[in-house]
Amino acid sequence: MQKDPIHLTNHILGAGAKAGAVDVAAAASRNSVNGVSLPIVDPHSAEAFRRRSLCSFDQPGVVMTKLPQELEDSQHEFGSKLVVIMVGLPARGKSYLVKKLQRYLTWLQYDTKVFNVGNRRRTASKGDNKNGTSHSHAFFDPQNKAAKTIRDELALESLEELIAWLKQGGRVGIHDATNSSRERRKMLLNRLESEPNCRVLFIESICTDPVVLSHNISMKLSSPDYKGMDEKTARDDFRKRLENYERSYQTLGEDDEEDGIQYCKLINVGKKVIAYNIQGYLAGQCIFYLMNFNLSPRCIWLTRHGESVDNIVGKIGDAPLSAKGKKYGACLSRFIKQQRKENERSRRVEAEAGMAISPQREKTVAVWTSMLTRTKETVEEFDPKEYDIKHIRFLNEIYAGICEGLSYSQIEQLYPEEYEARRVSKLFYRYPGMGGESYLDVIQRLNPLIIELERMTSDLLIVTHRVVLRILLGYLMDIDRSKMPDMDVHLHTVYCVEPKPHGTVVRKFRWVEELDWFVEETVEK
Amino acid sequence: MQKDPIHLTNHILGAGAKAGAVDVAAAASRNSVNGVSLPIVDPHSAEAFRRRSLCSFDQPGVVMTKLPQELEDSQHEFGSKLVVIMVGLPARGKSYLVKKLQRYLTWLQYDTKVFNVGNRRRTASKGDNKNGTSHSHAFFDPQNKAAKTIRDELALESLEELIAWLKQGGRVGIHDATNSSRERRKMLLNRLESEPNCRVLFIESICTDPVVLSHNISMKLSSPDYKGMDEKTARDDFRKRLENYERSYQTLGEDDEEDGIQYCKLINVGKKVIAYNIQGYLAGQCIFYLMNFNLSPRCIWLTRHGESVDNIVGKIGDAPLSAKGKKYGACLSRFIKQQRKENERSRRVEAEAGMAISPQREKTVAVWTSMLTRTKETVEEFDPKEYDIKHIRFLNEIYAGICEGLSYSQIEQLYPEEYEARRVSKLFYRYPGMGGESYLDVIQRLNPLIIELERMTSDLLIVTHRVVLRILLGYLMDIDRSKMPDMDVHLHTVYCVEPKPHGTVVRKFRWVEELDWFVEETVEK
Repeated sequence: MQKDPIHLTNHILGAGAKAGAVDVAAAASRNSVNGVSLPIVDPHSAEAFRRRSLCSFDQPGVVMTKLPQELEDSQHEFGSKLVVIMVGLPARGKSYLVKKLQRYLTWLQYDTKVFNVGNRRRTASKGDNKNGTSHSHAFFDPQNKAAKTIRDELALESLEELIAWLKQGGRVGIHDATNSSRERRKMLLNRLESEPNCRVLFIESICTDPVVLSHNISMKLSSPDYKGMDEKTARDDFRKRLENYERSYQTLGEDDEEDGIQYCKLINVGKKVIAYNIQGYLAGQCIFYLMNFNLSPRCIWLTRHGESVDNIVGKIGDAPLSAKGKKYGACLSRFIKQQRKENERSRRVEAEAGMAISPQREKTVAVWTSMLTRTKETVEEFDPKEYDIKHIRFLNEIYAGICEGLSYSQIEQLYPEEYEARRVSKLFYRYPGMGGESYLDVIQRLNPLIIELERMTSDLLIVTHRVVLRILLGYLMDIDRSKMPDMDVHLHTVYCVEPKPHGTVVRKFRWVEELDWFVEETVEK
Repeated sequence: MQKDPIHLTNHILGAGAKAGAVDVAAAASRNSVNGVSLPIVDPHSAEAFRRRSLCSFDQPGVVMTKLPQELEDSQHEFGSKLVVIMVGLPARGKSYLVKKLQRYLTWLQYDTKVFNVGNRRRTASKGDNKNGTSHSHAFFDPQNKAAKTIRDELALESLEELIAWLKQGGRVGIHDATNSSRERRKMLLNRLESEPNCRVLFIESICTDPVVLSHNISMKLSSPDYKGMDEKTARDDFRKRLENYERSYQTLGEDDEEDGIQYCKLINVGKKVIAYNIQGYLAGQCIFYLMNFNLSPRCIWLTRHGESVDNIVGKIGDAPLSAKGKKYGACLSRFIKQQRKENERSRRVEAEAGMAISPQREKTVAVWTSMLTRTKETVEEFDPKEYDIKHIRFLNEIYAGICEGLSYSQIEQLYPEEYEARRVSKLFYRYPGMGGESYLDVIQRLNPLIIELERMTSDLLIVTHRVVLRILLGYLMDIDRSKMPDMDVHLHTVYCVEPKPHGTVVRKFRWVEELDWFVEETVEK
């Protein structure tokens, strides 16, 4: 299932790696998990090791746990494993949250998978349920005992699938369903009691904002459940389905607290957050991420610096811009100005049509560059009075250790083994020498920036470097980790990323020197 | 007031710095702050710049904002400024939280100061209030109008002092008082309305755990208010004071939400956290920190690696251990074993005496090293079955850029200007060359580790390097930033840090080679 399991790749992690050290984690051999007391085990056993690795410090590639020799072959059993159980009425943005969380955790290199119960219901009903009752509101009536049994069965089947996947080496499994009654949640917890190696985190999404709610409901009507149905019938059915859910809905609260679980309630897209009993490292990361995002409409433009003197000769180093590079920077400032005007226009139109689900609060555009000469020179034409310009060390290019300042062909000549190791796996390869970095190291240092990017509401231009740009696009465009390190990101090209409620819209603009302007190109992912 | 203001030191930040770039931050020229609408200002004015720098990405030394030229002289006016207003009944651990938060933010290089209203009351009453009524429970009776006026005045005076301090360049001012009625909070908010350049964050501490509560009350009785009073009288008076407070106590809730404020409620030391409307970058950092700490009794041992081959010749580099260094590592493992036994014994005694405020949950000891050879070799005698051993890249020594591998006298010879710049300000000095770091850079990369260290409940041994050890001790022992970079941290010395409710206990043990054992020494701070 895991094509490039991080567990097995420490031997190519460079300076930091050694046999017997893997990136699983540990801190606590607690004797209670998910509120359930566990039998005491020999503290030196594999079982104890597995348990304490459940909720501890664990950042793929940056933290490595030294395993006892006899356990080295079962590395995939260790490390934090998290079962996220979603809670909430339909149309409360659960699946949106789930997708976002999956994208973030996957980017941080925790294998994450979503197990959606609604999809399972639709698949299951295709054969044996031709009259479609498993989609109509009657199916969701809490008094409909037969339907309830089917719904519970579907939820448990999804959970079984999730558990099996975690055992094969997955790290975070997300159970995406309404799970809106305490009875249902108890049922899932009961099943998980016999899985001491999974931590559980409940995440409930509550939405009381009428604008967001009505927007969500409109989106629901284009779901496969209502395919081919006219809008009025669909809306009517969905309203009844909601009422059925509401009749048995029990929000996470003091009763659940007695079960000793950990949970997080998100009210109105992070406006209010209630976190209870959060214990694991990974659970804390999830919640910090979810606390910080917002739905403001905005653009994120990303580009590499203009051509530097080193680029011309194919060297890695901190050189100033060439004449062409400077020309690019000047055109970039005119281009962003024009883009801002277009955005203002289209947002005004959206707002007037009542389509904006969140007000556009800020007109300032932030500009982030690295601290290296070539990115700072690229934004020299941007006026600090108009733009909020920041130079941020985290955006510096990957540091190539002893290969710094060499061209790739020089590396091949001088360090053929390093060249080969890098070729085999660019993602895990760490440049040799003090301070040398791997892609994973760069992901970790960019993590606070991603949190900030999600938190802020203004438009943003990022001017950075090849590897950093690949990694940022990897997150924003949800690019598979196997493809991300080989992505073509050319000089003098601007990516324009717009996060929308239904997904991310990406456009790409190439600078044409002869025109001294940008031309839109198709985006391959 | 600021002896070494970070704002003014960018010229020595090395590669990353240039004139006009300062480490203040910006992202949002929102037109409402703390729920108060502000007049629209010219978006290009200094005022607009000041406003948008209030709540945006801002990490001293890592993020630098480019200021318009005409504003460069008023740098201290910019950057996130936060007024933290504490809320909560007496004996709910407010001052403990405040001290912890101050220590963390100061370590992150945000100038932070606590303004304690109780201390002001005691000072004020010394002269004109000889009969001591301002300490006795009657003074806290909500019906006592005269006393209430005095208490409100004291609270406002503290706030004035806080605001004045922020204007002089301070970053986070903490108003440490009960502020337990909505009326009082409104009063403070009203005063802050005319300060559009301060963001407000309310932090309420609620404690319902009877063990923690009774512990806190016992500690209160040793407060200066009860000096010279017998325990029974003191306890009686304090109980009445509490009752008086409880009569007018209004927890933060929906009413306050209508004011558009941002707040965070901490219930039972982070067991449950409610965060509302959190907008600023800095506010988010505060809450993430407060969410993650715990009161479990534990030890953190810290040491540098054993002597390396490079240490003998005074070079900077990644060398293996000398014979002496290996001997140290072996003795370290015996020493920690003995320390664990002692801890278990004393914790058992504390628990039996009913003095433990939090149960000891884990027996595993975590061992963290850097990813460099000399720290990994130092823990070679630690059995991964008994210890949870992690190698963490963040713990690597400061990276010296082009000076890497040189001795200090070679640096002086080859790069006299660098040597001098470093001598003038070790804290801000960034080593030249790609990837070269400053102390501030190292603080930033250690930040996730501090969060983890606060989150975990097990004992912990950290084996690291000179600069990283200084910075970690800087946090744990709350060492002044002017002293931290010059702290003596010798090889073959173990610091043992125990966070206790009333402060941190630090002990120091020096390895004596002839004895092959450790001898306790006095700690100078």
